[in-house]
Amino acid sequence: MIIQLSDAVSTEEAQALARRFSAILLNDSGERLLITSSKQSDLSPELEACAEEIFSMQSDIQLASRQFRPETREISLGAAGTIGGSSKRTLMMTGPCSVESEEQLIACAEFVKRMGIRVLRGGCFKPRTSPYSFQGLGEEGLKLLAQMRETYGLTIVTEVRDATHIDAVIAHSDIIQVGAKAMYDHGILRRCGQAAKPVLLKRGFGTTLQEFVQAAEFILSGGNPDVMLCERGIRTFETKTRFTLDLCGVAWLQEHTNLPIILDTSHAMGYRYGVPALTRACTAMGVDGLLIETHPNPDKAMSDAAQQLSFEQFEDMFASLKPIAAAVGRTLV
Amino acid sequence: MIIQLSDAVSTEEAQALARRFSAILLNDSGERLLITSSKQSDLSPELEACAEEIFSMQSDIQLASRQFRPETREISLGAAGTIGGSSKRTLMMTGPCSVESEEQLIACAEFVKRMGIRVLRGGCFKPRTSPYSFQGLGEEGLKLLAQMRETYGLTIVTEVRDATHIDAVIAHSDIIQVGAKAMYDHGILRRCGQAAKPVLLKRGFGTTLQEFVQAAEFILSGGNPDVMLCERGIRTFETKTRFTLDLCGVAWLQEHTNLPIILDTSHAMGYRYGVPALTRACTAMGVDGLLIETHPNPDKAMSDAAQQLSFEQFEDMFASLKPIAAAVGRTLV
Amino acid sequence: MIIQLSDAVSTEEAQALARRFSAILLNDSGERLLITSSKQSDLSPELEACAEEIFSMQSDIQLASRQFRPETREISLGAAGTIGGSSKRTLMMTGPCSVESEEQLIACAEFVKRMGIRVLRGGCFKPRTSPYSFQGLGEEGLKLLAQMRETYGLTIVTEVRDATHIDAVIAHSDIIQVGAKAMYDHGILRRCGQAAKPVLLKRGFGTTLQEFVQAAEFILSGGNPDVMLCERGIRTFETKTRFTLDLCGVAWLQEHTNLPIILDTSHAMGYRYGVPALTRACTAMGVDGLLIETHPNPDKAMSDAAQQLSFEQFEDMFASLKPIAAAVGRTLV
Amino acid sequence: MIIQLSDAVSTEEAQALARRFSAILLNDSGERLLITSSKQSDLSPELEACAEEIFSMQSDIQLASRQFRPETREISLGAAGTIGGSSKRTLMMTGPCSVESEEQLIACAEFVKRMGIRVLRGGCFKPRTSPYSFQGLGEEGLKLLAQMRETYGLTIVTEVRDATHIDAVIAHSDIIQVGAKAMYDHGILRRCGQAAKPVLLKRGFGTTLQEFVQAAEFILSGGNPDVMLCERGIRTFETKTRFTLDLCGVAWLQEHTNLPIILDTSHAMGYRYGVPALTRACTAMGVDGLLIETHPNPDKAMSDAAQQLSFEQFEDMFASLKPIAAAVGRTLV
Repeated sequence: MIIQLSDAVSTEEAQALARRFSAILLNDSGERLLITSSKQSDLSPELEACAEEIFSMQSDIQLASRQFRPETREISLGAAGTIGGSSKRTLMMTGPCSVESEEQLIACAEFVKRMGIRVLRGGCFKPRTSPYSFQGLGEEGLKLLAQMRETYGLTIVTEVRDATHIDAVIAHSDIIQVGAKAMYDHGILRRCGQAAKPVLLKRGFGTTLQEFVQAAEFILSGGNPDVMLCERGIRTFETKTRFTLDLCGVAWLQEHTNLPIILDTSHAMGYRYGVPALTRACTAMGVDGLLIETHPNPDKAMSDAAQQLSFEQFEDMFASLKPIAAAVGRTLV
Repeated sequence: MIIQLSDAVSTEEAQALARRFSAILLNDSGERLLITSSKQSDLSPELEACAEEIFSMQSDIQLASRQFRPETREISLGAAGTIGGSSKRTLMMTGPCSVESEEQLIACAEFVKRMGIRVLRGGCFKPRTSPYSFQGLGEEGLKLLAQMRETYGLTIVTEVRDATHIDAVIAHSDIIQVGAKAMYDHGILRRCGQAAKPVLLKRGFGTTLQEFVQAAEFILSGGNPDVMLCERGIRTFETKTRFTLDLCGVAWLQEHTNLPIILDTSHAMGYRYGVPALTRACTAMGVDGLLIETHPNPDKAMSDAAQQLSFEQFEDMFASLKPIAAAVGRTLV
Repeated sequence: MIIQLSDAVSTEEAQALARRFSAILLNDSGERLLITSSKQSDLSPELEACAEEIFSMQSDIQLASRQFRPETREISLGAAGTIGGSSKRTLMMTGPCSVESEEQLIACAEFVKRMGIRVLRGGCFKPRTSPYSFQGLGEEGLKLLAQMRETYGLTIVTEVRDATHIDAVIAHSDIIQVGAKAMYDHGILRRCGQAAKPVLLKRGFGTTLQEFVQAAEFILSGGNPDVMLCERGIRTFETKTRFTLDLCGVAWLQEHTNLPIILDTSHAMGYRYGVPALTRACTAMGVDGLLIETHPNPDKAMSDAAQQLSFEQFEDMFASLKPIAAAVGRTLV
Repeated sequence: MIIQLSDAVSTEEAQALARRFSAILLNDSGERLLITSSKQSDLSPELEACAEEIFSMQSDIQLASRQFRPETREISLGAAGTIGGSSKRTLMMTGPCSVESEEQLIACAEFVKRMGIRVLRGGCFKPRTSPYSFQGLGEEGLKLLAQMRETYGLTIVTEVRDATHIDAVIAHSDIIQVGAKAMYDHGILRRCGQAAKPVLLKRGFGTTLQEFVQAAEFILSGGNPDVMLCERGIRTFETKTRFTLDLCGVAWLQEHTNLPIILDTSHAMGYRYGVPALTRACTAMGVDGLLIETHPNPDKAMSDAAQQLSFEQFEDMFASLKPIAAAVGRTLV
């Protein structure tokens, strides 16, 4: 339940209520909210007396729910402009799976720039499943990304792998990416709740939509209102493709939550041949952003070699997306 | 392995070879093919001597493989024209989940006609999971469908539930629909192999892509070259939506098989709110057909009430699909 | 809802009520039951007046529910005796995946006999996923099985693949096996409902527990009270094993349904190395029966070669099961 | 590939080889091992010259593989004795889901002691999916657990939620539990690799067996040889039970890995009614340990109330396990 407190309630009273009802007290653009578990169904008369407005929820999807705020949140992404709200923009983000070297990253940044794209992605702390393969360049990679921001004016999105380096990622990125395997990591979620940067939260491949949005609630209730949800494929019995992109789930998220939606088709498919068609499908669904892996020489990539697009492939695909975006009343940027 | 026999081989010799090597002998538009399991990897010198051309396959996806025939098969659907081949058409098929009454079906047929759509769907033998709910009108429904063909010139697609009424369905329909739950039914598959009508084969919700295409091989190797594959959602851990539409799987099918692809978004989503956006996504993928449930009064439908679109909802969606089809170089018909 | 009619209601009145309320009228060991969909929640006063007892169900698991009949059904399996009820027996059923030849089947029957086992399994109509592999001996195989019954006094369980040969399977078997791929086949389920032989119904690998038990309801409400449920593994994201045996699901079935439970570990595992340990686990769960594949020469088997046990392996496993059965108060027969 | 270095190779040479071939250099009970990714298939002549023995692996399951060390690792758990090796022990670990208060924990510890059980479990950092529910007592809980060790001589197992408090968990526990949601957390895995305490690693509910064992490889290759694998249910389409316990997967792990196996049936089932039967099944599989939730008053539990056993239920179940353990040649402790 979300209780929007009336102006008559003093700060001290608000804090006392939060303690007494084990509630989270949140300042949400000027409004003070008390949030309690949806399972505490009884509203005490005392709380009711302090309420300006009450939002009674059926589950712990609360701040992210369209029942609470019906409009999609507008999120400002620095030089890349805004998404959500009434912007009708679909934002392309691209770059390599892993930052591998300065040379590789410059090639990517120049390509991105040439395409007129505003957001560069690149991973530095790779959540590999084997200890015996390339683990990423770490902080050295973060510095290379920051250099691309300086030189090319690009907005940088990069992934945090675990709580031990969350501060470094926050310091060097413009958008904090929380990966599919880190999605339940309270150390990361709570720290992102206190960060002043937007968060791109990926769905775990074994994660229900309910749990996914509840992970966003950790960040939102921690004080950071700028969360984007990224669907990147779930794990099913089908193994001919790497994962199964859940567009039914995207339809559910669009209907029920107020968070902008980003789609990552590279990880879902796992093979470059399918990425263009899937990305066209996502564009037609009217999503707020797209996250696609590109590499100057995909076959030599140090991670996810099979799924990254070459620059030529990306360019062809990118051209094909624009009329689809236009057909659904959106602008691809 | 597919061995295309040379003209020098007589009919008797061909039959003898088939018996001797436990192979299927198939006449495929004038070419005689011997097909053996992909596991019999050794090619005997005797077979080799009879071969005009040899297609060695890695699995029992053989006749459906682009390795055998690289072009998508062109299938003629009577009054509805053709799909596949070089047609660049995306064919809309719509109508109610169940045929419920003459009045209901006429309302649907007139709506379909008014939209300029050529194919009417409607189920008569419903594969319900409970014995205590509506089971369909059976043959009475088939006759109503045939009446719509007469009156409105529509192409009829309807579902066979089990082998006991396959002959009635073949007799009264223009396209034989094999549903998700009947997809492994050898009684149906073998009979469809001998039928002179195109087959719309739905993927079982627990069926791998490999098994799905192998089910089509039963029909193709039985002598019927006209099979369409219909993805309609698979069963995953996510239950907020009825099923999970597998567009990664569609990308795989488009890459590897020569069969036209149809998408059913109604069953995948299970709720009407998501059907329009998902159908736009499918259109952008450049599929060959779409199968959508509509009902004159969805809330009163005797089956699948939650997912059928009203005529108004369908009309809005249909208008939105055309520019997307155009954007990917296709015509929506 | 199940309405047990009072004796005052005449046969004509009962039939009239069934028609009027779209209910199924069933004679269940002398009691007349009217069964309506659980969704028709309102009980009309007229029906209430005719009721001896009313069972109001939350879903269409009705005749199979412990709410209706709390005790596990006792099912008589001819020469093999009974299972369920208060028998505390765990019945072993074994034999080859496919009946391949008279010689092979005699070897199996003699082995089964020597082990003191009463039930021989063997498939004649194989629901293969590829048209290019061995499809089973068909009716010739059924006759070989019947011959084993004659010669060795064994109870025969064999599988029906589709509705086209259901009568032949009923005629030649003692227990009708409905396989995982045929589980939704109304042609089979309805015919089994009229058969006077017990049915072993396997769970589809993509089938929920709810749907599985509802498939049994088709048979039960058709008039055949003797249905056994067989768990044989579901399809999940894990592919190192063929399927995933769902023992949590078995615990649910034991708690909520009154049908005896059979476990097939051969298909679940798909590899013989794991079959003995899994079968020990199932025995410890106190199930009513076990269905295990054995073959005189597993590596040469014409289907499922990887998972069938040799006679030596089976013999070792069988010896290890008896003390476990005893430890849970059961007798392995 | 694992290259066991010959004694002739000096420490400096070993380090130089590791750097040059991007290999991990590990001291494994006196043997020096160089471990490289299984994808680097070519063995250089230089490495070959330094090898005492070479283990060529098909995947990055290397140190955990029975190909490398065929015997199950023996792990010493302090006062609780050893598991694995030739011990033939099945170790019971029980206690509440969450440490809630000193009073609750003392009740549990006394019960555990009275049962003759040696290991007490209890969670302090709960990986809840909602920010609005009870999150655990944190370090205060760890201190209560340490107090139970002092007072009752029990071995303590408790869970680390994320990398921010890993040092506190290592300091206060005897066995470090890595939960299903933290299983990919490199911050935790790498720190556990340097810890001198055994690790109980739970399988993520969306995690393949391959990834699961590879997560163990992070710890093993980090220098900690004492890893136990805990299966606790995977997420499937079946939702009548909380998860699906994967005993086929357990059979695979027993066949292919040298790590002791622990089974958690409480989380798999999610409902107490099924826990006893499932735990009997696991015992019959001959696993090395069992992890079961108990609570003095389950209905009032602050987390996972539905699945925790009361002391009476546990006591009944525990008595039933001993003869099953005996039947498979094991001792339940």
